[in-house]
Formats: sequence, structure tokens, C-alpha cells
Amino acid sequence: MTFKRNWTDHPEGSVLVEFGGTRVLCTASVTDGVPRWRRGTGQGGWVTAEYSMLPRATHTRGDRESIKGKIGGRTHEISRLIGRSLRACVDMKALGEHTITLDCDVLQADGGTRTAAITGAYVALQDAITWIGNEKKVRRPENVLKRSVAAVSVGVISGQARLDLCYKEDVAAEVDMNVVCTGDGEFVEVQGTGEDNVFDRAALDAMLDLAAKGCKELTGMQVKALLSR
Amino acid sequence: MTFKRNWTDHPEGSVLVEFGGTRVLCTASVTDGVPRWRRGTGQGGWVTAEYSMLPRATHTRGDRESIKGKIGGRTHEISRLIGRSLRACVDMKALGEHTITLDCDVLQADGGTRTAAITGAYVALQDAITWIGNEKKVRRPENVLKRSVAAVSVGVISGQARLDLCYKEDVAAEVDMNVVCTGDGEFVEVQGTGEDNVFDRAALDAMLDLAAKGCKELTGMQVKALLSR
Amino acid sequence: MTFKRNWTDHPEGSVLVEFGGTRVLCTASVTDGVPRWRRGTGQGGWVTAEYSMLPRATHTRGDRESIKGKIGGRTHEISRLIGRSLRACVDMKALGEHTITLDCDVLQADGGTRTAAITGAYVALQDAITWIGNEKKVRRPENVLKRSVAAVSVGVISGQARLDLCYKEDVAAEVDMNVVCTGDGEFVEVQGTGEDNVFDRAALDAMLDLAAKGCKELTGMQVKALLSR
Amino acid sequence: MTFKRNWTDHPEGSVLVEFGGTRVLCTASVTDGVPRWRRGTGQGGWVTAEYSMLPRATHTRGDRESIKGKIGGRTHEISRLIGRSLRACVDMKALGEHTITLDCDVLQADGGTRTAAITGAYVALQDAITWIGNEKKVRRPENVLKRSVAAVSVGVISGQARLDLCYKEDVAAEVDMNVVCTGDGEFVEVQGTGEDNVFDRAALDAMLDLAAKGCKELTGMQVKALLSR
Amino acid sequence: MTFKRNWTDHPEGSVLVEFGGTRVLCTASVTDGVPRWRRGTGQGGWVTAEYSMLPRATHTRGDRESIKGKIGGRTHEISRLIGRSLRACVDMKALGEHTITLDCDVLQADGGTRTAAITGAYVALQDAITWIGNEKKVRRPENVLKRSVAAVSVGVISGQARLDLCYKEDVAAEVDMNVVCTGDGEFVEVQGTGEDNVFDRAALDAMLDLAAKGCKELTGMQVKALLSR
Amino acid sequence: MTFKRNWTDHPEGSVLVEFGGTRVLCTASVTDGVPRWRRGTGQGGWVTAEYSMLPRATHTRGDRESIKGKIGGRTHEISRLIGRSLRACVDMKALGEHTITLDCDVLQADGGTRTAAITGAYVALQDAITWIGNEKKVRRPENVLKRSVAAVSVGVISGQARLDLCYKEDVAAEVDMNVVCTGDGEFVEVQGTGEDNVFDRAALDAMLDLAAKGCKELTGMQVKALLSR
Repeated sequence: MTFKRNWTDHPEGSVLVEFGGTRVLCTASVTDGVPRWRRGTGQGGWVTAEYSMLPRATHTRGDRESIKGKIGGRTHEISRLIGRSLRACVDMKALGEHTITLDCDVLQADGGTRTAAITGAYVALQDAITWIGNEKKVRRPENVLKRSVAAVSVGVISGQARLDLCYKEDVAAEVDMNVVCTGDGEFVEVQGTGEDNVFDRAALDAMLDLAAKGCKELTGMQVKALLSR
Repeated sequence: MTFKRNWTDHPEGSVLVEFGGTRVLCTASVTDGVPRWRRGTGQGGWVTAEYSMLPRATHTRGDRESIKGKIGGRTHEISRLIGRSLRACVDMKALGEHTITLDCDVLQADGGTRTAAITGAYVALQDAITWIGNEKKVRRPENVLKRSVAAVSVGVISGQARLDLCYKEDVAAEVDMNVVCTGDGEFVEVQGTGEDNVFDRAALDAMLDLAAKGCKELTGMQVKALLSR
Repeated sequence: MTFKRNWTDHPEGSVLVEFGGTRVLCTASVTDGVPRWRRGTGQGGWVTAEYSMLPRATHTRGDRESIKGKIGGRTHEISRLIGRSLRACVDMKALGEHTITLDCDVLQADGGTRTAAITGAYVALQDAITWIGNEKKVRRPENVLKRSVAAVSVGVISGQARLDLCYKEDVAAEVDMNVVCTGDGEFVEVQGTGEDNVFDRAALDAMLDLAAKGCKELTGMQVKALLSR
Repeated sequence: MTFKRNWTDHPEGSVLVEFGGTRVLCTASVTDGVPRWRRGTGQGGWVTAEYSMLPRATHTRGDRESIKGKIGGRTHEISRLIGRSLRACVDMKALGEHTITLDCDVLQADGGTRTAAITGAYVALQDAITWIGNEKKVRRPENVLKRSVAAVSVGVISGQARLDLCYKEDVAAEVDMNVVCTGDGEFVEVQGTGEDNVFDRAALDAMLDLAAKGCKELTGMQVKALLSR
Repeated sequence: MTFKRNWTDHPEGSVLVEFGGTRVLCTASVTDGVPRWRRGTGQGGWVTAEYSMLPRATHTRGDRESIKGKIGGRTHEISRLIGRSLRACVDMKALGEHTITLDCDVLQADGGTRTAAITGAYVALQDAITWIGNEKKVRRPENVLKRSVAAVSVGVISGQARLDLCYKEDVAAEVDMNVVCTGDGEFVEVQGTGEDNVFDRAALDAMLDLAAKGCKELTGMQVKALLSR
Repeated sequence: MTFKRNWTDHPEGSVLVEFGGTRVLCTASVTDGVPRWRRGTGQGGWVTAEYSMLPRATHTRGDRESIKGKIGGRTHEISRLIGRSLRACVDMKALGEHTITLDCDVLQADGGTRTAAITGAYVALQDAITWIGNEKKVRRPENVLKRSVAAVSVGVISGQARLDLCYKEDVAAEVDMNVVCTGDGEFVEVQGTGEDNVFDRAALDAMLDLAAKGCKELTGMQVKALLSR
């Protein structure tokens, strides 16, 4: 997995994540104020995420959700997963009444787009929080970031737990699991689904072990990317 | 948890699930044919689910999604979870080109609506499949149902894993996990989220143990409900 | 017709109306404030209604309007009829700047859902106004309720006026009329339609006579239900 | 009330109805085929209506429903009323698998737009059916039209029944009733609403008498307009 | 081209433009205040336009955009063109915080509807600005109107530039150009499109010459119409 | 302007166009069949385009049109412009019943996105047509492409015609013109707008001269890019 920081010029954080054939542009936008339902509640800032795929990111062209006039269930589900994962990183009170929006746009898809999006969005988020500090938008910028997150997908193919499947393996997988961990190895999100198949506790344990190991490696790569330049 | 079968007259399966203050009407509707994208692919039937809440199922009235003109992310996410879980029960080829739609409408909410919906929908599904057999709509009706499913939510409150929280506990929970198991104790879906908090492997293991035990009990209640009358 | 008051726990008024095979859950929700267009006009409070059917309330499953993304004409028409009828019961100035929303959700349909909804909604409305009085939300609670309403459908089958048709009779009816009366026997709404057929003044008079009689009986049942417990 | 036939060139029937300050353009469009739900049911043709108001037909500009992206309840209700009323005129089997769409667009509103629309739409409908006969689109064109319809609004002002109120009177009316009659004096639709007020049987009877008389006069004007040229 | 001023009673400006078989009702509505994004920016007032076609303005009936629930691209494009053209006439600061909305509804279409709409909307705009002056809504009403605009369409048929094509010629045209000029002969908008064909500089120059000449004539007619009565 | 061909793997044509700070991903997707309205008309294939901007392509984040549930007027206008321009390149009968969809997604915006999109889309189109030939999808692939197109924007700043303004200049421009030319120097589209200002024939001529020259240069760059590798 490679991270190209500042891939575009305008956002407060902008990272192109590449992982196998998968390419996701993760941007972090800082705006003053919070959504109406949160205003004046004393709960501080907000972090939200929107995931989308370009129509021809995949093998066959998908219709644009803007033209269909509605967001599909899969898009909603992934946007919410990214949002929850990244909110786990931020101390909302320390952030104050600012909103950070993480846009994860898949330019090319080859499996694992949601976990690549989370892992890249974290890097964009940290850059945006650095920007917030530089702009003196909050009193104690060093308190805004509570922890880092990274995510992997694990699957079971022919009864064997496997990390980060590409698209072809993904389709063949009997079980599919997305795991989001903190830099300290704790869990933020665990989502495992068999759909056609089911899995026993042993398979689940094997996947969790593998996922924790995978997230740890990604955390290292994130740190390295954030140190460069 | 109590199951009132045949709670309404028209559906092929109709179950009112009650669980604490939570009340969900789960109906199974059988229609001939499958969605367009599945037609003529030789993959057989289809099972899908739609979850919704009556506007005043909750403490404060929520706007109707029909009036807002769009389905919210939470509704999408839960409908998809129910659909995947129930599809795990059905041999689609044995079902043939029929569609079973599971409607789960929350009449009153007091925590755990999505897991109550899955557990009740299974009972409605089995009734609908019995109906399919009686109507001689498929050649080998005994092959349609592969397994049963039941679902529980588990949480961590003050560092302690707890089964099936009511609404107040749900709000207070540090971690929230929904687990769908088969009657044989295997996993179909595992969804754990910390949102504000994170959880270590020990807490995850404790929740999974508790969930498996809870699902086993619910399976017993489902069997009993399905034997009655 | 039976009325189960407090059928759910959260709403300020909650009534399950059962009438033949028809079952409608009518809830009354009280919120502070009025819609924007009414704010600060000195006209006082507001009463509005939303009618909806669960997808499998009927013999064949209907698509959800939330998924279609728009409200159908029939739903709009019935919601408006219920709203107008219940507004006739309330002195808006005495209500003050509060809104009462009446949700009428059809759990099972066997003819006459709109008239059952109005008759049940009145009971929920009165319970909600009692709650408003208990909560001391208005100065003179005894002035809020001006009158009661009840509604029946009448039809003509084989040239004969008939009260409250069930679904099968409804389909066979040559003329279909919905009448809303006050407890004092005055008219609030009269809606008669022949669609395929037409009707003369004598038939209309016969239907109106029957309707007035039917509403009177329903008023008695409402009073009895409201006195109990 | 004046009828300007062939007011526009393209439609099979096109009538500008003027009535006081109210001006409605009623067009009848004939298309081959029927809606999908009616196809191949052996029930013959279909007649449907769509009512709309130009944004500045009224004193203050209203937002376009096309821009709001949804049809309001009032528009739905009136479109359905017009459709039912005009369907009462047509023998669907004699019409065969053709659809007649009646578009009623209010160019200027001064009260009574829905009844003017019905009365004008009938004239456009008859012209369209003449066109169908001339084009030899059906075998027995003389059977297509079963009867004529005309509509009036009646109201009660200061306790007095009054025919066809203009906008100012409409606002002041205590009760508002729309009545659709056939040329033979039978009723097709009766819709009376008090909203704020209620009305007794005597007032209802007075309004019905007046309405029947008013419809009869309009029928005469329709006949005259259809005979001219 | 003929202009019928005050064709409807309610708007501040109301003009029926007729041009060949094309008939467009252009109304100008004045409202206090400006859109939210412009409020308090010190930029003054706003002028906007909405174009629409009645369903049966054309040879075959088009679906209503209100029923489809979305505005089509062609409608958007023309509305924007009219809006930009008419904004060129107005000194926004002199207008102050008022909004003028130009509604251009095509009652009958026979080619050139967008240019007829612009030319007619100008007359309605001037009437509305006169009304603003009479109502003393702005301090220096004589400064609000900066210039007049008129628009023509030009096309190339069989290699020959031609002014204001009717529908049949429009369909046959190799190149289609819409030109908006001021009363002084300067250009406000130039939109030429070949779609299937392309055009060289000589053809473009010929079309521009013809367009300028045509706009000049229309300006004369506008002046004459505005002087009458 | 630089063209990176095959920037993504899946589309039949995929070009990243970079021009100053502007970066647009143009992909061409080939699908069998044509839209319903064109099917079986003997008119051959179809070429269409969709333009969109990533939310943070600009200085401040824009809301996603998918979330707003509708396409804005600007997006519609540009999509239509790109579609018309690229259709001018293709012989639809030679293309046969295939559809080529050009998706132009702006990853970063710094002025001139619509003209960069057209110029880049042409390169993607030619690659897709080469692919069609290689796949032997049409009988005479050499006839499919009729001509090339390229587009520039020209503006007037301080009375001076200027080519390809960046965002800051764009905002300052008095007049803004987009011109699409063929490789032979003929015009496909000419769109000039003053909005606040107007322009005389001399300014228009100067802009057209400059545009033709600019398009010629871009044509050279397109040829060079298409020859490489």
C-alpha cells in the first residue's frame, strides 16, 4: 500500500492510496461549524465520511448515483463504516465546533476499496488536523487526535484465512471480514459476513489474528508516509 | 422473546416478535419470479428484506422516509443485514424462481430492533417455506431450508459484556455488537463497533461467547414457537 | 369496532382500532412549535395527519413509498382527509403553538381503512389532549377540544345502500361514499364517488341517512372506550 | 363560462375555459396502448388526468413542483378527481387499447379551478373522441362516449348556499363543496368539506340542489360550444 | 412577433408572446428579499428564470417533469440561458434586495421557443420594473434597467443562413445558433451548435450578421409594444 | 496540456488530462445496444457524456449531487455540451448498435474544466474506437471516426482577448467563451456569454480567432499523445 500525500492542492488533507489495482482518493475538508442537530449541544466537533465510486472504476460501468437520484445501500453502508472508524480517532471536544468531511472516491477498484479508504482517510485526517493546528483554529491542537486507525479485509478461501484479497479472490471468498484496528492493536470495527456460507469460531479467530497483524503493518506504513517530507 | 405467529392474515408468514418493549412485525411474502438482474441466470430464487420503523415507534417522532423521499443510511444498513442473514438459510436453487420478501416493521422500539427482526423473520420465513411446500410451488420443498438463524446484540457496559441491552443500556454501552448465528452455533454475521470506544481481543472474545450462548437460547424458542399449533 | 388504547407506550395517544379484518394503529404525537408557514401568525397550533399502509397489509404486497421515493396520490388524498377531519375537532388558538401529528398506519386492510383511521385517530387525539392538560402545556386545556368526529363508509350494492363494506363488498360496490360526522350529527366531510357508475339523489339521500346513523353508533363506542380505565 | 375550442393546434382536443378570472387550458391527448398494469387484461382503454398550476397563476408565486421534485397533495387530489370524473364518461371497452390523457393547466386562478377544469376537460374529451372516430381508430366510435359531465363548486357564506364562488368568497366560505353531475342530472362525485366548520343536513341539501341546477346550466353551455363551428 | 401585455392579471409583468405557431407566456414576479447565498453580501438584488413546456405544447405529449420528479437537461440549459440574458439588463445594486423571477411557460411550440421566451421576458421585466418604481420599492428606479435584450435563432439550411426557423426547418437545419443582443446591437449570448454538422468561419459570420439584424428588428417591436396603452 | 493514456485499467479508453491545476479523468466505456428511444430506428449507435466534479476538486467543498438527489443545471449543461461535441466525431451508422459513454470526472479544478474534458474525452474516444476495431465489433471500423475535436475557453480581461484562463482569471473575465473546433479548423460549438457584461462584434471576432488558433495547437498535442506508445 502506497500513500501519495497532497495529491490534490485544495483540500486540507489529500491522499491517493494505491493498493494492488485499487486506487482511492481520500480528501479531508475542514469547515467551520457543525451539523444543525449537533449545534449548541456542547459535544464539540464532528467527523463524517462520504464514499463513492467513479462509474468506470470497475470492470463494467455502473450508473451514477447522482443520476439515479438516490444513494444505494452499499454506498450508505460503507460511508457510515468509514465515518464511525474515523470518529474513533478524534476528541470531538478538543476539535471544537468544526467539521471534518472525509471524501473517499474510488478511481479504480480491485478489491478492498473500503479498507483502503479507511486507511488512506486516516492519513488525510492527520494532515487536516495538522493544518488546523497551524491555522490556530483550536486551542489545544495536540489533543484533537486520540489514536490512529487502519483497516484490512480478510477472507476464507478453500478453508484458509487470507489477508487482503484482490477482486477475483474476493468473489471466490467463502467468508469476508473487514476489521478496523487502532495503532495500539485494539478493535474499532469488526464486520464479518458469510452470506452464502457460515463460519465457526476457529475460522473467526484465525481471521481476527490475521487482521490484527495486517493492521499493525499498515500502521507502520501510515507512520512512515506521515513522516516523509 | 415471544413469537405470535399468523399475527396478520394475508402474508405467507406473519410473526409479531416481542422482546422487552420492542415489538416488530415480521412478514414473509412469496411472489413468483425473481428480480430482473437474476432472471435466467440459473441461480434460482431470491430472498430480500426491508426494515422500517413506524414514526412513533420511538420516544420522539421521526420523519417518515417516504415523505423525505429517501431511505436513510441506517435503514439501508439494517435491511441489508437482515437480507444477508436470511439468505444464509435458503438453498436458492431448491427455491426455484420465486422471491421471498421479509418485511420487518418496528411497531415499538426499546433496543435490539435489528436482532429481534432477524430472529422473528426466520420464523416467518419458515412458515412461508411450509406454505410453498403445501402449495406445491417447488419440486423438493424439503431442500429449500438449509439452516435456521437467530441474532442477539451484546454490549460492554462498565467493562462487562452484557446480552441484549434495552434502549437505555444501549445508549450507555461502550461497545455494541450484533451477532447472527445458525441453529448449529456457527456464525453468519458478526458486527462489532466501538464508535467512541475501542475494545481489545479479550472483550471481543467475551462478547462472542455470550452471543453464541444467547443465539442458542433463541434457537430453542424459535423451535418451540414453530412446533406450537 | 374495538379500540385498544395505549397500545404502544411512547406516543401521547396510541390506539389500535380493529374493525372486521382491518387493523390500524393510530398514534398522536405532540411537539412544541408549529410549521414554519404558521409561525408567528397568531393562528395558534396545528393538527396534521399521515396515513400509510404496511407493504403486506393487503392480499398482495405493495411497494413501499419510501423506496419508490414518492408518496402516491391515494396516500396523499387520505392523509389530507384525516387531517381536515381532525382539525375540525380542535380550537387552534386554545391549543397554542403546539403541533399534534396523527399517524395512521394500516397493519392489516379489509376495507374501510380511511374511516377506521379517522375514528381511531379521534380517540388518540383526545388522549393526547388529556396529556397536554396534565402536562400543563396550555392555559385552558378544557377549550382545546371542540367536538368529536367519527367516520363511516357507505356503498351501494345491487341498488341497496349498505354500511361499512368489507374488502370484497368494497370492490363490488357501485358507489362508494365516505362520511365524517361530529358527535352531534353534523357533517364534517362528505365524499361520494361513482367512478364507473353514477347515482341519483335518492341513492345519495339513502347513503347519507345510513352514514349519519352509523357515525352516531361509532360515537357511542368512542365515548365508551374513552371512559374505560 | 366560455369555451374556446382548438385553442392550441397539436392536441386531439384543446379547450381554453374561462370563468370569471379563472382560465384553464384543457387538452386531450390520444395515445395508442394503455398503462402496463392494464395491458392484456381485456378491460379496454384508459382515461387519466393531470392538473397543474402555472407558478404565477395566483396572487403570490408558488414554487414549481418540477423543481421541488415532488407532486403536492392538493395536485394529486385534484388530478385524481378529474380522472375519475372523466372516466365516468367513457366506455373503456369501446375505446379499445388507447389512452386519453387530459391535461388541465391553470393559466390564471380566481376560484373554482378544479370544477372549471372538469367542465372544460369534458369538451376536450368529446373533441378527442370525435377525432378517434374520424381516424377510424376504433370499430364503433359512437359507443365510446357514455355520458357528459360538468362540475360546480358551491359554498355556504353567512349561512347561505352560494354557487361558484370567486377566490375572495372561496376564502370566506364556511363550507366548500364540489359536485360533478352527468348531463342527465345524476351524481358522479360529491365532495363537501367544512374544515373549520361543520354543516347540517339542511345546508347539505341546499348545496346539492344548487349544484344540480348549476351543473345543468353548464351542460347546456357545453352542448352549445360543441355545436358551434 | 406579437406581444400581449397584461395577459394575466396577477403578475407584476405578464406578456403572451406569439411568433408563428409558438406561444409563450412570460411573467415577471417581484418578491422581497434575495436567495440565501446572496443575502447580506452587498451585491443587491437577483434575477432568475424558469422555462417549462406544457405537456401537449408539442406534436406528441411529453411527460411532466413534476411527475418524473426531476428537471431535464434541456430545461435546465434554457432556464439558465434566459436567466443570464435577463440579468444583463439589470443593475443589481439599484434593484436592491428584491428578486425578479421570470417564468416562461410554452403553451404551444413551433420552433424558437427559447428565443421567443427571452424576447418576451424582457417586456415582462420592464413592466415589472415600472411597477417597482410605482410602488416606490427602490430609491432610484430609473437606474434599475441598464439595457434591453432580444434574441433570435438562426440556422443554416442547404448551406444558407436563415433567420427564425419554424419547427420543421429547425429539425432540418444543419447548424443552429441562438443569439441574444442588446438594444444597442452588442452581444449578450452566442450559442452555436452543429451537433451532426460543423460550420466554418464564413457560415458563422453570416449567421452573426443575420442575427444582429434580426435582434434589431425585435428591439423595435419591443419598444412599440411597451409604448402602447 | 498533457494526456496520460490508459491511466486506469478497466475502461476501453482512459485519459487523465492535466492543464494548469486542472485534472480531469476522461474514460470511454463501450456497451452493446443503444438507449431505448433509439433502438430499432436504423440510426445506428450513440455517444453520450456525463460530467461531474469530485466534492473537493475546488477551493471549498461542494455537496455531492448524489446526496442532494438531483443534478444541478451547470452539470447538465456541461454534460450536454460534451455529448454534442463528441457525437460530432462519430459516424453513428458505422458504429452500429453500440453506445460509447464518456465520463469526465474533475479531480481538481483550476479553470477550463469543460474544455479540458472535451479535449481529453476525444483522446479516450479514439482509444475506445481502436478497441472496437480490435474486438471486431463493427464491420468497417475505419469509418467510425469522422473527425477529431478539441476545445478552448477564451475570455476578455481588461478589454483584451485571452486564451485558457486559470480560475482566478476566469472569475475576473468580462466575457467567457467556449469554442469547440474540429482538427480541420471548423466549428462544432461556440458558446459565448457576457452575463454581467456585453461584447461587440470586434471582441467576438478576436476571441474566435484566438480560439481557432488554440484548438489547432491542442489538436497537435492530441495527435502526438495518440501516436506515443
